Amino acid sequence: MEPLNLKIFTLNCWGVPVPVVCKKRKERMHAIAAELSAGEYDIVFLQEVWLKADYQILKSKLCSKPYPYAHYFYSGYVGSGMCIFSKFTILDSIYYQFQLNGYPHKIYHGDWFGGKGVGLCRLKIQDLAVYLYITHIHAEYSHDDDEYLAHRVSQAFDMSQFVKYTSSAADITILCGDLNLEPTDLGYNLIRVNTGLRDAWVEKQSTRGLEDGMTCDRPSNSFCDPKCLTHFPNGKRIDYILYNARKSLSAEVKECSLVMGKISGRSYNYSDHEGVMAHICIQDKKNQLPSSEPEESLDQLLQKSIVVLNKGLEKAKNDKHFFITLALICALLFYVIGVVHIPYPFDFIITFFKIALTVSAGYGIINNIVLNKSEVNGLMSSKEDINNLLQNLPK
Amino acid sequence: MEPLNLKIFTLNCWGVPVPVVCKKRKERMHAIAAELSAGEYDIVFLQEVWLKADYQILKSKLCSKPYPYAHYFYSGYVGSGMCIFSKFTILDSIYYQFQLNGYPHKIYHGDWFGGKGVGLCRLKIQDLAVYLYITHIHAEYSHDDDEYLAHRVSQAFDMSQFVKYTSSAADITILCGDLNLEPTDLGYNLIRVNTGLRDAWVEKQSTRGLEDGMTCDRPSNSFCDPKCLTHFPNGKRIDYILYNARKSLSAEVKECSLVMGKISGRSYNYSDHEGVMAHICIQDKKNQLPSSEPEESLDQLLQKSIVVLNKGLEKAKNDKHFFITLALICALLFYVIGVVHIPYPFDFIITFFKIALTVSAGYGIINNIVLNKSEVNGLMSSKEDINNLLQNLPK
Repeated sequence: MEPLNLKIFTLNCWGVPVPVVCKKRKERMHAIAAELSAGEYDIVFLQEVWLKADYQILKSKLCSKPYPYAHYFYSGYVGSGMCIFSKFTILDSIYYQFQLNGYPHKIYHGDWFGGKGVGLCRLKIQDLAVYLYITHIHAEYSHDDDEYLAHRVSQAFDMSQFVKYTSSAADITILCGDLNLEPTDLGYNLIRVNTGLRDAWVEKQSTRGLEDGMTCDRPSNSFCDPKCLTHFPNGKRIDYILYNARKSLSAEVKECSLVMGKISGRSYNYSDHEGVMAHICIQDKKNQLPSSEPEESLDQLLQKSIVVLNKGLEKAKNDKHFFITLALICALLFYVIGVVHIPYPFDFIITFFKIALTVSAGYGIINNIVLNKSEVNGLMSSKEDINNLLQNLPK
Repeated sequence: MEPLNLKIFTLNCWGVPVPVVCKKRKERMHAIAAELSAGEYDIVFLQEVWLKADYQILKSKLCSKPYPYAHYFYSGYVGSGMCIFSKFTILDSIYYQFQLNGYPHKIYHGDWFGGKGVGLCRLKIQDLAVYLYITHIHAEYSHDDDEYLAHRVSQAFDMSQFVKYTSSAADITILCGDLNLEPTDLGYNLIRVNTGLRDAWVEKQSTRGLEDGMTCDRPSNSFCDPKCLTHFPNGKRIDYILYNARKSLSAEVKECSLVMGKISGRSYNYSDHEGVMAHICIQDKKNQLPSSEPEESLDQLLQKSIVVLNKGLEKAKNDKHFFITLALICALLFYVIGVVHIPYPFDFIITFFKIALTVSAGYGIINNIVLNKSEVNGLMSSKEDINNLLQNLPK
């Protein structure tokens, strides 16, 4: 076969539609669209395009030329935020929504509302079946006390199973996105070992520009929150281009670089993340360079995952008690407040409190009965799938 | 290869844990476990095992012998209700939860709480990769005015994509379950044509017992609701064993029969559904009998699906208006009731009404903002996936 040179690009666009929290969103979206309209890459993976209006900005600039094919993955309340632009026909698509994805009452974290998951688009390039996966795992928020760890490990494992199952007919598999996982994290290694995908940044033969590979919370990024630098003075590497080719093909990463940076003529960046590009050359296998494998075996990683999921189940049990206690306290306060007589016109305060207490009690009950049980079932689902896999690993 | 004879069994166990609605549940579960413990089948697919206690009854009777391998698919609030028992090792597993699955306020229908989807377990039998899929699609409830039609078509399509994508490395694919779809329904044909799966009942070379194939709402079933007979005097065929083998293999259905019926020595059936069994013989291909294909092309079926999904989007738009109107009316009533003075001890009625109005207004707002948008995104997700597939069908 003719060597196939694929240029891949991924970026978390930071398209959170909350003006004070997310700065210069509209300007940045236009700048991203303008930059990508040069058509430097063959396939573009974007995350955090939460607003359909922002997707339209991108589509209108990119879809006539250079990327006639695009797919947005609808999901959850705000949509997955993920889309793919391609120079090649998108043959078909499917979305796998994670069973676990944070909590609705954590409105300020917001991940629950995105219906996060992994999207798949299938292409054919030069008679090769190319499978494109895009994902955005639940954010970490606190490194020292990661209350979402079990959800994040469950997402990483479920995704790795989905990729493994669906990609068996693929000649080339590419998984891009914001994993919200660092290379030392359990979830990252689980994905790599269970799918056999390689990390373009690790395998690269060359790079331009920023050499440390940190894609998020970089001190040089104009949107970097100084608080993040306490734990990660140089930032974090959490945005990835993972890839693989079937056995008879070799896939070489000619280049992998952090790109985009600051918008030309402006003092601010395209996003609070850096863009990642990879130039991957696929050809018939001659001599393949050995790839860097994660140090831990699948067996070890699955064992560790079960420990995390068990802790998640323990936490869910405690949460269940918390929410029913909350409901009871609210009901009690509601009764107590009913006895207090406050004269007109201040009685509206009582009304306001009663509404707040009813809503809180209602949420406590719903959480106790439905949401908490769904969380337990989601954790059990991943745990049982891990157990099945673990019991049948080749010794 | 040696011919492989597989005996498959599927049953919707009607394990709804509501005593008056669902009769003799515990007795029936014990009877199902006792009947299956004879080990007549190689693989058993069960649906509507909602209670973990019922799953334990089955497991304790079946798992030492004859079915040492079992997997329950945890999902949603009550669990998917689906499990697989197997004489062969379950190598690994994954669950694909549907994005759309009815509405939480339809508590009396309850499907939403099951987190419905499709489960997959992978086996190896005589060096053949056998992929087992189990599913239970959202129920119909009203044949003339099926408010869930768009959800059901979305589920059928998403499942067909999931099966198509994940089964490409399978030697043998088996999909069993209660599809809640009849052979003339769009969803059934969509699944068959998009996956290429064949229907054991249609392809069978022989059958024992009940010859019409109706698996649900049969007049002869002791739990048959006479109301259902108005539309379907003989019952409905909605429980299926669908199968396929890779091209170099032939798969012949030696027998497909409705089994179990009434519990021996009792006046009632094992379930309100009939069990379905198939004896499928797999061997190297010699002369394969042509299979009965659905009459419509994938193109036609996808076009029809889009019409249904568009109607679903229209309905979702109307529902959005309904729920915000509900919230406004509740808020108005709350205000009006505040003015009415009812003396002690009858003021508790006012308090009760205020709580009910607050909860209703809260649900109306949540539905308007979050749930309705999630429904629209779920419908859009299927619609876009269908569009991608439709645009790239071979002409």
